[in-house]
Amino acid sequence: MRQLRYAVVGTGAIGGFYGAKLVRAGREVHFLLHRDFEHVRVHGLRVTSCDGDFQLPAVNAYASTQEMPSVDVVLIGLKSTNERLLQSLLPPLLHEHTLVVLIQNGIGLEADVQSWFPGLSLVAGLAFICSSKTEPGHINHQCYGSINLGNYSCKDETLFQSVLADFREAGIDAHEVDYAEARWRKAVWNMPFNGMTVALQTQTDQLLSHPATRQLIYEQMMEVVGAANALGISAIDESFAQRMMQMTDEMVPYSPSMRLDYDFHRPMEVYYLYTRPIAEARAAGFAMPRLEMLERELLFIDSQNVQ
Amino acid sequence: MRQLRYAVVGTGAIGGFYGAKLVRAGREVHFLLHRDFEHVRVHGLRVTSCDGDFQLPAVNAYASTQEMPSVDVVLIGLKSTNERLLQSLLPPLLHEHTLVVLIQNGIGLEADVQSWFPGLSLVAGLAFICSSKTEPGHINHQCYGSINLGNYSCKDETLFQSVLADFREAGIDAHEVDYAEARWRKAVWNMPFNGMTVALQTQTDQLLSHPATRQLIYEQMMEVVGAANALGISAIDESFAQRMMQMTDEMVPYSPSMRLDYDFHRPMEVYYLYTRPIAEARAAGFAMPRLEMLERELLFIDSQNVQ
Repeated sequence: MRQLRYAVVGTGAIGGFYGAKLVRAGREVHFLLHRDFEHVRVHGLRVTSCDGDFQLPAVNAYASTQEMPSVDVVLIGLKSTNERLLQSLLPPLLHEHTLVVLIQNGIGLEADVQSWFPGLSLVAGLAFICSSKTEPGHINHQCYGSINLGNYSCKDETLFQSVLADFREAGIDAHEVDYAEARWRKAVWNMPFNGMTVALQTQTDQLLSHPATRQLIYEQMMEVVGAANALGISAIDESFAQRMMQMTDEMVPYSPSMRLDYDFHRPMEVYYLYTRPIAEARAAGFAMPRLEMLERELLFIDSQNVQ
Repeated sequence: MRQLRYAVVGTGAIGGFYGAKLVRAGREVHFLLHRDFEHVRVHGLRVTSCDGDFQLPAVNAYASTQEMPSVDVVLIGLKSTNERLLQSLLPPLLHEHTLVVLIQNGIGLEADVQSWFPGLSLVAGLAFICSSKTEPGHINHQCYGSINLGNYSCKDETLFQSVLADFREAGIDAHEVDYAEARWRKAVWNMPFNGMTVALQTQTDQLLSHPATRQLIYEQMMEVVGAANALGISAIDESFAQRMMQMTDEMVPYSPSMRLDYDFHRPMEVYYLYTRPIAEARAAGFAMPRLEMLERELLFIDSQNVQ
């Protein structure tokens, strides 16, 4: 089989990292850039990484998908606050068999993109990575880096496995996971910690060191577990929430992506991280009052914070 | 009947105001002071008021209740964060028939004081007043000023009515109310607004102008209504919550007392405003998840804020 051709939409801390790894492994990758376009067109991409630094002096850089070729695989690294942009960004990149990997946080992303592109093959990409874009074209990968792929609507199993194989050949720890289970497992950590670090202007370790907020975080995790169970995902249980607490106890003090968005006065991903999962749980008859309250606090904070 | 003799414990924005009004009406009042003792001993009390300013050049000022006479009525204006101090402050002020009015915010205050002084006559004082102490011995009364008295354990109806009469003669709009109903009615406003103005660093008008927090505030009010109903107080219903929303819409932007405590890095009254009512509701089988979450946020904030 000929090699797959890739596009990255949203060449930031996540999309830029995985795309750059694929380029280094010899894959053809086309990068959509926005603010960094001129810089990357001239200087390429630079990755400072705990696994070894590298530079890509020349990459295929574009300011618009209109100028990009159609590809076999699109990696989406956009913030989900811009999800609707995909309606106009994606069409030039698609051919009949294109697979789109949404490397984004939240619940309901695949359902929305599918509603805009009914025939499209969609895969969820769940990245476990500490990475940030520190300057134009410069990605700073601090630690971790694995990615789980959950098949949402790709019927071409060979294509799906080829993407997994490409990621692994690029040195990325990649695994196939159950789509819905993986999205909700990630929500067990994401929903409490992303919002609470913003609401209380703090970090993960502080939240866990005060008994009141430690208890609250655990109750919020159990709301996510309960929602997943109500939606028929029985593999997520109380012991998983306990493991997430323990894992976070062992992490260095951490500011989740929503806290960083808040700090830089960028819009927060409240909709796909809170509003949608809360609505899906409610539709299944399950209430999440603590996370609903957090959602409302975040909507208020966002309205006062975004510049 | 001879005139009643009064003591004020906690001569601040509230205790100082009502005590000064009683002095001006000719009642004998003994004031316990702490930081302001020296100033008030020399200069007396000064009240700047929307109802007319006045000054009391000489008042009975004390630095310790040990030096004070026993009295017929004690008005407690202490912050409830200092409630336990009453165990040692009160005894010198009491004779066999002393009535103690707790002009404080929260639920469970009377039960605790009663447990320390089983035979004591206790009355709840619910002040509706905007007042602050702006400098030593200087009380700034901006608006309102009425007080509702709810009889908790006073068996001497004549004494209770005499206190009401004294308040009215002093120009204070005073009414008798049902004890439990009055405490819980006040909680319907206090529990949402005191905590939320701290948690979101804002004021009442901002909370009501954003649809997300407006909805949250209303849901929190309905948790208090539900708790009151579960405790057998059926007179508080949804229409009361709606009236509180409307009343707050019509108020000037307001920082509740907890927000002021926070701003001045003083301990917040989390225990009697949140922990106790939540525990009383839970004991009656009613859960208040949103206010419980707010309580936990406030405990965290308090632990980082108090100097």
